[in-house]
Amino acid sequence: MEWLLDPRGCPGFEKHEVQAHVEKPPYVHHTEYFYLKIPKRYALVNLTGYVEAALERSGVRDGFCFVSAMHITSGVYINDAESGLLRDISKWIDGLAPFGKDYEHHMTGEDNADAHLKSFLTNHALTAPVTEGRLDFGTWQQIFYGEFDGRRSKRVLVKITGLK
Amino acid sequence: MEWLLDPRGCPGFEKHEVQAHVEKPPYVHHTEYFYLKIPKRYALVNLTGYVEAALERSGVRDGFCFVSAMHITSGVYINDAESGLLRDISKWIDGLAPFGKDYEHHMTGEDNADAHLKSFLTNHALTAPVTEGRLDFGTWQQIFYGEFDGRRSKRVLVKITGLK
Amino acid sequence: MEWLLDPRGCPGFEKHEVQAHVEKPPYVHHTEYFYLKIPKRYALVNLTGYVEAALERSGVRDGFCFVSAMHITSGVYINDAESGLLRDISKWIDGLAPFGKDYEHHMTGEDNADAHLKSFLTNHALTAPVTEGRLDFGTWQQIFYGEFDGRRSKRVLVKITGLK
Repeated sequence: MEWLLDPRGCPGFEKHEVQAHVEKPPYVHHTEYFYLKIPKRYALVNLTGYVEAALERSGVRDGFCFVSAMHITSGVYINDAESGLLRDISKWIDGLAPFGKDYEHHMTGEDNADAHLKSFLTNHALTAPVTEGRLDFGTWQQIFYGEFDGRRSKRVLVKITGLK
Repeated sequence: MEWLLDPRGCPGFEKHEVQAHVEKPPYVHHTEYFYLKIPKRYALVNLTGYVEAALERSGVRDGFCFVSAMHITSGVYINDAESGLLRDISKWIDGLAPFGKDYEHHMTGEDNADAHLKSFLTNHALTAPVTEGRLDFGTWQQIFYGEFDGRRSKRVLVKITGLK
Repeated sequence: MEWLLDPRGCPGFEKHEVQAHVEKPPYVHHTEYFYLKIPKRYALVNLTGYVEAALERSGVRDGFCFVSAMHITSGVYINDAESGLLRDISKWIDGLAPFGKDYEHHMTGEDNADAHLKSFLTNHALTAPVTEGRLDFGTWQQIFYGEFDGRRSKRVLVKITGLK
């Protein structure tokens, strides 16, 4: 399997759209969809900058930033952006949830059962803490989107809630 | 291992009970326990409808819906409800966290160490976003409960918090 | 691999520090960092008592307690504190994300790629529900910190938000 691995950004990111922005001072709930079309079937791409931009748009100073793939063939996780490690992670995911086996899901005409298992392994969503208006992260924490059935339009939901 | 797989509902669901409902306008915190007794040792069953009913009871319009197995031998996840895929997922979990090995936990008289590992793999809890009074999901996202040591009474906690 | 397994506490826990405490009645957001230096490379240690102390300091009565490793070579999870099971879990993690393979990350001079995979498998963070001022847990649920590259200073973030 060939993977698109981008430690710095998200090729195929198309746009964000604000779905809801509710302010009940001092509380804010801000929801966006990101629209992506990753140019390869498999990818690990860095979403951190896009999430930080959504956080800035939200105005939230203290609270949580929830990031979720809206599809069951992709996922999100937090780890390092070192490019060798991205290759290690991609191979490791392929090893634990391999493509091309005789999955029963394929009786429906699909060929992507491995993508569902990869999503299960990765987790569909994550929560990041927000303190003083910033992602409250350690030095090396970065938010990654894992695409396991790409080359089609997908959405990632970002909901940021907290105190202004 | 024989699994009970129900893409549409949760056999053995007994009742819900509201544990706490705190309203501090415009904020609501609503907590329920679901009581289940799954009739087989292993199961993947669809909880989505039950969670949606709790969301409706909560009155929350924008916020988060947190769903958690209160046991360390079960878990929850979000993925597709296609029945072939449920068989694939059940076999995949069995493969990565197999029953019947010589686990040290079994020195206590238990025989369910595999269920703890399956719970670890699955995750004990998940968070779902709520926007405009509904689970803010993609087309195919469904909430599943994974039972790995059933035929006994278990609880699932649902806590929904947000703006009314 | 030799693991430090402590079902009761966290050897190497140094201190907590309150990073932020924001009160906008009736809402409280309380953020702490825990400082740890685990004396072995690999460990599964019980954080429950430390998290409960932070919850008490926060004053939150109903809401969520979010616990996150701030490093990409450690993780947190919820499961049982039985000592045989801790050995089973440690071996299982080692089996799925083994040390000492020819990882590409090691081209950077690091030797801890397995720790990143173990972190991925475990999850960097978890959310625990808080009801009536206590962790709303089943009988056997305990919060564990998984250290996969220890013997150095690390931080765990705890953010507790909710109604006073």
